[in-house]
Amino acid sequence: MRPRFYAPAAGKTGDLVDLPDEEAGHLTRVLRLKAGAPVRVFNGRGGEFEAVVEAAAKGRVRVRLGIAREAPAEPRVAVTLAQAVLKGDGMDEVVRDAVMMGVAAVQPVVTARSEVSLAALARSRRRARWERIAVSSAKQCGRATVPPILEPRAFAGLVTALGRLELPGPGLIFVEPAAADAAQTLGELAAAPPRETTVVIGPEGGWEAEEIARAAAACRLVTLGGRTLRADAMAIVALAALYAVWNEY
Amino acid sequence: MRPRFYAPAAGKTGDLVDLPDEEAGHLTRVLRLKAGAPVRVFNGRGGEFEAVVEAAAKGRVRVRLGIAREAPAEPRVAVTLAQAVLKGDGMDEVVRDAVMMGVAAVQPVVTARSEVSLAALARSRRRARWERIAVSSAKQCGRATVPPILEPRAFAGLVTALGRLELPGPGLIFVEPAAADAAQTLGELAAAPPRETTVVIGPEGGWEAEEIARAAAACRLVTLGGRTLRADAMAIVALAALYAVWNEY
Repeated sequence: MRPRFYAPAAGKTGDLVDLPDEEAGHLTRVLRLKAGAPVRVFNGRGGEFEAVVEAAAKGRVRVRLGIAREAPAEPRVAVTLAQAVLKGDGMDEVVRDAVMMGVAAVQPVVTARSEVSLAALARSRRRARWERIAVSSAKQCGRATVPPILEPRAFAGLVTALGRLELPGPGLIFVEPAAADAAQTLGELAAAPPRETTVVIGPEGGWEAEEIARAAAACRLVTLGGRTLRADAMAIVALAALYAVWNEY
Repeated sequence: MRPRFYAPAAGKTGDLVDLPDEEAGHLTRVLRLKAGAPVRVFNGRGGEFEAVVEAAAKGRVRVRLGIAREAPAEPRVAVTLAQAVLKGDGMDEVVRDAVMMGVAAVQPVVTARSEVSLAALARSRRRARWERIAVSSAKQCGRATVPPILEPRAFAGLVTALGRLELPGPGLIFVEPAAADAAQTLGELAAAPPRETTVVIGPEGGWEAEEIARAAAACRLVTLGGRTLRADAMAIVALAALYAVWNEY
């Protein structure tokens, strides 16, 4: 298989495009490819091409685009994953998994029980890090679309944005077993797949009752059965289950 | 919430039972609980009880069982996960995830492209390690059943066991996108949930064509769409998708 690189400038067959620095470094320093090497590139917006390295020196790489290739189809339901920021590497794993699963966007959220603030996220440039992880995951899974990582929001802002349809509805908020009484089952959601949706997943400590009450105004409450899922596994399980009942597989 | 411990000897209300060494160590050295502390215990076979620490000294712990408590229901479809042994910590993660998802048993498998042999697995006592991980995962997710980790088998032995119904059928083998032409979609499996099944998942390098051909005699080939899933994520995605289409959620 040809090695595959992210080239956001890739437009049409015949174009000469530069790779971003990080991709150029991967091509020259890790894979040690030279001019003439056959590769594949994707532009992050669904475009995928065969390509040939035209010049590769000192971390600067230019490729010539060959014929367009069909990338795997994107899911029919466009899911925005609104994920409460997790501790440590947990959020990195969720971003990586969510991109592999096919989400249309990731909306990081700071909730009452999140152990990080919006200010701390901004200082530590976490969003830029998640964007790099999204590119890396798209490379690995063969996806030609790199979903955007949206500016982190507070939970109150998320609910407002859902209410105003600044984020796609219906909102689906996944709740822990203890809060499942008021929740719908996945089977009840299956009947009519929406065109788009926002899936809301909580942090390690779960939701506060007040958050669930506020979310209920803008979201349907959904449960995934009686076992307590790890916070860093909740998104991948919810996405797999939703895509499955919506006939994505 | 009361801390929760694994007590395989727990039988009925009123019994005095010793905790296994590892659990006793957790109770005395990590949580520093003393006689009189209220706890919960589960026996790994679906039984769950309130309990009180009767004696706790030097890593030896005895508890008195109180009233029985209902544990979360086990999935209606009993899934044996036949997972190709992964590199590094990958298999540990799959065992942890699979127990949390609700599998009935884990069958480690050595395939053509596995980077480990049955002999090396036996030498390194990996099965005992996976059994400890299964207990730990059951504790975390609130499950009262600890699924057995079966003796690792070679792939050929797995196919034979499926053919002889020594492992529950139907066998479902998940294949990578490149091998998906001959495969069924998940939607086609949804119609009639089986009572039990064996779900077969490959290693990092995927299946050899010959393995897929052999498996096809004893298994249905199933695909999960066009994106390439990471080997250590394949099991959790497949399980979530199967439970979803079988109305488990």
